Amino acid sequence: MDSKPRNRRGFLKEGAALAGLALGTARSASGQTPGPAPVAEAHSKDPKELAKELIAYGERSRFVTSVRVPVAERMSPDMFGLTFHVLAPLQDSVGIITPSSLFYVATHRGSFVPEINPSEHQLMIHGMVDRPLVFTMDELKRLPSVSKVHFIECLGNRAQARHKTVQETHGLTSCAEWTGVPLSLLLKEAGVHNGASWIVAEGAEEVKGSSSIPLAKAMDDCLVAYGMNGEPLRPQQGFPLRLMVPGFEGIYQIKYLRRIKVVDRYYMTYDDYGHINPDPKVAALTHEIGPKSVITFPSGGQKLPGPGFYDISGLAWSGAGAVRKVEISTDGGRSWHDAELRSPSFPMAHTRFGFAWKWDGKECVLMSRCIDELGTVQPTRAEVAKFWNRPLDAAFRVPGADNSVQPWKVASDGSIQNGLS
Amino acid sequence: MDSKPRNRRGFLKEGAALAGLALGTARSASGQTPGPAPVAEAHSKDPKELAKELIAYGERSRFVTSVRVPVAERMSPDMFGLTFHVLAPLQDSVGIITPSSLFYVATHRGSFVPEINPSEHQLMIHGMVDRPLVFTMDELKRLPSVSKVHFIECLGNRAQARHKTVQETHGLTSCAEWTGVPLSLLLKEAGVHNGASWIVAEGAEEVKGSSSIPLAKAMDDCLVAYGMNGEPLRPQQGFPLRLMVPGFEGIYQIKYLRRIKVVDRYYMTYDDYGHINPDPKVAALTHEIGPKSVITFPSGGQKLPGPGFYDISGLAWSGAGAVRKVEISTDGGRSWHDAELRSPSFPMAHTRFGFAWKWDGKECVLMSRCIDELGTVQPTRAEVAKFWNRPLDAAFRVPGADNSVQPWKVASDGSIQNGLS
Repeated sequence: MDSKPRNRRGFLKEGAALAGLALGTARSASGQTPGPAPVAEAHSKDPKELAKELIAYGERSRFVTSVRVPVAERMSPDMFGLTFHVLAPLQDSVGIITPSSLFYVATHRGSFVPEINPSEHQLMIHGMVDRPLVFTMDELKRLPSVSKVHFIECLGNRAQARHKTVQETHGLTSCAEWTGVPLSLLLKEAGVHNGASWIVAEGAEEVKGSSSIPLAKAMDDCLVAYGMNGEPLRPQQGFPLRLMVPGFEGIYQIKYLRRIKVVDRYYMTYDDYGHINPDPKVAALTHEIGPKSVITFPSGGQKLPGPGFYDISGLAWSGAGAVRKVEISTDGGRSWHDAELRSPSFPMAHTRFGFAWKWDGKECVLMSRCIDELGTVQPTRAEVAKFWNRPLDAAFRVPGADNSVQPWKVASDGSIQNGLS
Repeated sequence: MDSKPRNRRGFLKEGAALAGLALGTARSASGQTPGPAPVAEAHSKDPKELAKELIAYGERSRFVTSVRVPVAERMSPDMFGLTFHVLAPLQDSVGIITPSSLFYVATHRGSFVPEINPSEHQLMIHGMVDRPLVFTMDELKRLPSVSKVHFIECLGNRAQARHKTVQETHGLTSCAEWTGVPLSLLLKEAGVHNGASWIVAEGAEEVKGSSSIPLAKAMDDCLVAYGMNGEPLRPQQGFPLRLMVPGFEGIYQIKYLRRIKVVDRYYMTYDDYGHINPDPKVAALTHEIGPKSVITFPSGGQKLPGPGFYDISGLAWSGAGAVRKVEISTDGGRSWHDAELRSPSFPMAHTRFGFAWKWDGKECVLMSRCIDELGTVQPTRAEVAKFWNRPLDAAFRVPGADNSVQPWKVASDGSIQNGLS
């Protein structure tokens, strides 16, 4: 948490007062009689009704209308059954916590969110272990737990030329505080056999979606999570139990977790489409997301009211660890400048960045790039195309996970468009 | 974030397997054929209905019923007008983020939650400044912002003998990620006059609730916050704008913030009942909350199913900075042992602690105490009574803020009661 970012002080020292010059439309009250600030609207509801709303479970203001939107072509039956991809409204995001109600949803694993009674749900750990174990939810909750902030991202989270907003380009990632029991504790308790090298984790939904995960990862930082942002997991996020596999793509974060089998090889599962590779080492290369970042303000579909001061804001993350640095370009990638980190920077978590920018009213292209704690730099789309030896045009689609830099084009009228289109 | 707490390893090394001996009721599946884990309930809703729920703004499971409850005697008109005190369900909490829907509510400032249209809301900064300023919400959001995790606590958050649950004893505190503009940035921009020493911050609700805050605090770490847990503030929390005064008691965290006046003295305001003292230095002593902590599991009204392993879990916080350490007693305060910190420990934020405990089935008293980064130790109720030179009995009520240790009495049948009763 950087409460005294470097750039801000520099910015203030320029002597360009926020009112007037630097802040395009801020009005100084100098010379006005400081009259009363505007009052709240009259109340239309009766006190009893309001008191009831106040009490049990609060709601958001009716003036707040930010919602998730579906990926239209993914709401009908396909080869995987009915597939949902529901995009989080990143353009409205602040900080690093995604509200649970707005957390992205993606599933290829049947058309339904199962309605699971937690008092009937169990987790079994078996396979190559000394002591197969079955836990009820109550039993799991009696064990030592930890709380950690981690992002999840769907492999399908990719900018395409036809995408207009950051919700469309990057809305398949979200970040929450997860609470649960370290998987390593459960595996140690079960007693893993020599020779075991993978686990297969399985959910309780219709199709029993499952994924193979290296045992080394399972013993490292995975969580058997029942809590999310301070309350039980939401049904769309796997209530009552989910496997958190920090930094791995979304399909590994098994929802409705009911079974973990310890095995000695990689098992190809039902919808393991992203990893169809006979060599587990190659398949494992898609495990680690990022480093990646995106500017959420200003972003596609938004409009700047005029030249002046703006605070560029966005999110950065990496499957390999914490975000070390974020850089901003306001000239299409010719020059890069350090952004400020405006939130904590946790391993495998969204990190909020900001950059003080004075827009001169001319056309330009804004970009961000993430450098993670290993020093890996988020590549541009041109670099990715070169790597895959493909022509760089609007039709180019990054094979596998796409962590390329997202350009936003600012027109002279202040409107923002996807720089890929 | 401590992913490998010390005690856990020691616990496992004891060789007391979680199944059977250590974990009271966990059933080993050894000797059973590892059959299928229980499946999800049948789905009663049609796919279209479910798809709609999935999309816009997700909801919690119908099996999750945790709610806030009002302090009954505080829901009717009193000397301050209609007063609300609505308690957060700490007994169900996990991690350190309080879900916005379950965040505690306390107000003496009129009977209504104002319904404010953010496009009409403004913040004025005036008084002893060179350039009085007025900001719309859009203008504020264009300025550099930061995101920080902080608790808020009402001065009225005090254990009493008649309280049965941790919701009743400690439910007037909650913790969230707040996003906003540093107040220091706005004050520097306005240009504070020499000789100014306080600010008075005022809300837009019916009675225009206000508080006096030392200028030094205002220039230090206060936030003009518009974001909470990744979305706009909730109406009960001050939508669209709230002053965050980290570590100060709740009444300073002015909701519906519309005006900040820079002044040269402490102003007594409408409901400044907690600080009626002519000496601002004495009044300021109540500014800093804690150090404080409470065990949320096991806590009053809960029941342990039998002897065996339990993970004691709770929250610690301090208005003076970060939590350095939490200690646990399972023998009514005779001996104390280090708990593990199970979440990040931010300055002026809730911190989750845990302690591996094997209950032998005998009557005992559980306690926690917080030591903050200044080394200040949370006092017992006996120590507080001694300090105030009062007899220690059930009727003893700590004057001012009460940060005394909360005892939970475990009966031999596993039931938990308030140790003060």
